[in-house]
Amino acid sequence: MQTIRVELGARAYAIHIGEHLLSGAGLILPHLDLPKVAIVTNTTVAALYLQQLAEGLRAGGVDVISIVLEDGESYKNWATLNRIYDALIERRCDRKTTLIALGGGVVGDLAGFAAATYMRGIPFIQVPTTLLAQVDSSIGGKTGINHPLGKNMIGAFYQPRLVLADTAVLTSLPPRELSAGMAEVIKHGLIRDAAFFAWLEQNMEKLLACDPQALAHAVRRCCEIKAAVVAADERETGDRALLNFGHTFGHAIESGLGYGKWLHGEAVAAGMVMAADLSRRMGLIAPVDVDRIIALLKRARLPIAPPGIAPGLLLQLMGVDKKAEGGNLRFVLLDALGAASVRAGVPAALLQQALALAAA
Amino acid sequence: MQTIRVELGARAYAIHIGEHLLSGAGLILPHLDLPKVAIVTNTTVAALYLQQLAEGLRAGGVDVISIVLEDGESYKNWATLNRIYDALIERRCDRKTTLIALGGGVVGDLAGFAAATYMRGIPFIQVPTTLLAQVDSSIGGKTGINHPLGKNMIGAFYQPRLVLADTAVLTSLPPRELSAGMAEVIKHGLIRDAAFFAWLEQNMEKLLACDPQALAHAVRRCCEIKAAVVAADERETGDRALLNFGHTFGHAIESGLGYGKWLHGEAVAAGMVMAADLSRRMGLIAPVDVDRIIALLKRARLPIAPPGIAPGLLLQLMGVDKKAEGGNLRFVLLDALGAASVRAGVPAALLQQALALAAA
Repeated sequence: MQTIRVELGARAYAIHIGEHLLSGAGLILPHLDLPKVAIVTNTTVAALYLQQLAEGLRAGGVDVISIVLEDGESYKNWATLNRIYDALIERRCDRKTTLIALGGGVVGDLAGFAAATYMRGIPFIQVPTTLLAQVDSSIGGKTGINHPLGKNMIGAFYQPRLVLADTAVLTSLPPRELSAGMAEVIKHGLIRDAAFFAWLEQNMEKLLACDPQALAHAVRRCCEIKAAVVAADERETGDRALLNFGHTFGHAIESGLGYGKWLHGEAVAAGMVMAADLSRRMGLIAPVDVDRIIALLKRARLPIAPPGIAPGLLLQLMGVDKKAEGGNLRFVLLDALGAASVRAGVPAALLQQALALAAA
Repeated sequence: MQTIRVELGARAYAIHIGEHLLSGAGLILPHLDLPKVAIVTNTTVAALYLQQLAEGLRAGGVDVISIVLEDGESYKNWATLNRIYDALIERRCDRKTTLIALGGGVVGDLAGFAAATYMRGIPFIQVPTTLLAQVDSSIGGKTGINHPLGKNMIGAFYQPRLVLADTAVLTSLPPRELSAGMAEVIKHGLIRDAAFFAWLEQNMEKLLACDPQALAHAVRRCCEIKAAVVAADERETGDRALLNFGHTFGHAIESGLGYGKWLHGEAVAAGMVMAADLSRRMGLIAPVDVDRIIALLKRARLPIAPPGIAPGLLLQLMGVDKKAEGGNLRFVLLDALGAASVRAGVPAALLQQALALAAA
């Protein structure tokens, strides 16, 4: 097991990474105010891992209730959140009950927001079960739900007390989910660590085959990078925005295709290609850098361009209006493989050219 | 104008108290990230003060949108909160838009929770227009909504950047609202400041007549007391609970009568009598102390006992079950006029006797 600290002063916490951490409750028990937990999960994950986690906790003397939600991003809404509140109230959970999110990004976001807002905040632990959640969404305290008018519009920054990343569970992931998580893994290398990007080039096939050592290394390195970025800028007033590399394009692609068609990681992959292409057009990186990025994404079985979406629609979905086109365009761009920065004053013409990739 | 600081480190803020602070935007402007604000208020307050506040801000170059809610505790729910979200999204408010709550406790709680959760938190300013909001609910960062199964079950701790308490607006309060706020004023004296309690005994009639000097003094002293308590224990893990003096009983009374029948402050007044009576039965204060409390509440035109509610029902509404009766009963009690503490091990028999007041 390896442990990484997210240094956030009074809200600091540990991320434990290793195989088969789920079944022993020993890592969780010291973080409970009272021996009572509510596990929030979904039907898919419950069938695989709920019993394992719950039994370990019960063996440790913990009163465990479970709240099993439907599986899917379309359930990341107020109605599902309210189901969690109802269950917490009906089961007489109070401020000392710990909420545990067992699942991927949707479960973590929903459960985290429930923990942030039930009785004005109760203890919270993340047990991410997808690669994307282990390397990205479970760390850093972003929680929330979608609003009919926008994704993640309602939410809170709320840090967990502990993140438990059991890499053994990744072997049960459908290959498409594993690849989608790999997009965020590659992103961490691109924005912060050229050596890690090169390591990914050496080890992509091992990762896709769920080689335990390779997975453990990738998850650890991503957690280290994300933990450092979050510790320096918890509320995204500065460098935390670098974690959004490829996401402005990616969100527009997700939205343009209709939510649920592509996985988030798939849209981010195609979005990173656009952002890399724009970085090249700005003269920041070389064509060969873009080629390396595309090659690695392809090997990770990720899409590198969405099926034809008109550039005009993408612009609109990115919230770029006529005024913004006047010169206020800001994007996270690459200065090199392994280094990113926020750049303002992106010429509209170059943006149009990068977007044309989507129509190709 | 007088200014009190709530010392909360990076989240510290000022409470300005004075007459006619509403019309000048000068106190608000320095706290805005961008010159764009969304004022959340209700129909009653909008008719009296919205124009005044909005025009001052517009004269200061601020883009002002207003969101006018229905008036009443029954609207402190998800549906109303969603109306705020919808309006913020439709009017393209982003993370740099400041939300201003203009109104009493319900508006402050709702708007504060919207500010805490819209795009994971936007700047927030409180402009309380009731006595209760000026001396209590606008300070300390408690925000939230009611859930069908419980009051204030959903919420967040979210501090404003500024509280602007314009005492001139209190003259427009219905007498019953003014009295209800006086219950919390008296509470601040009872739990922390015997001299202030004695001052209230000297000045109650002036306060009820909205004498400007007297009101300014009472609001200031309450803000000082609450600011000190909150600064020492923001998330209510210790002494902040003392602010709940009379509230465990009060909430049960509100609930037993049916919400909306009594104002919160009225229920708190009767609840404080029960808590004082229980303190006397525990041998902590003298009968003459209880008499002084009852006399002052009466002069503030507040009820001192609810119309007959069976003690058994009150016990149930207070969440006291058979197990708790075994000895784990904890209450905020008075050690003297001006000093309170949380006491465990209250004998069930004494509690029953105090509750019998309600049936009298």
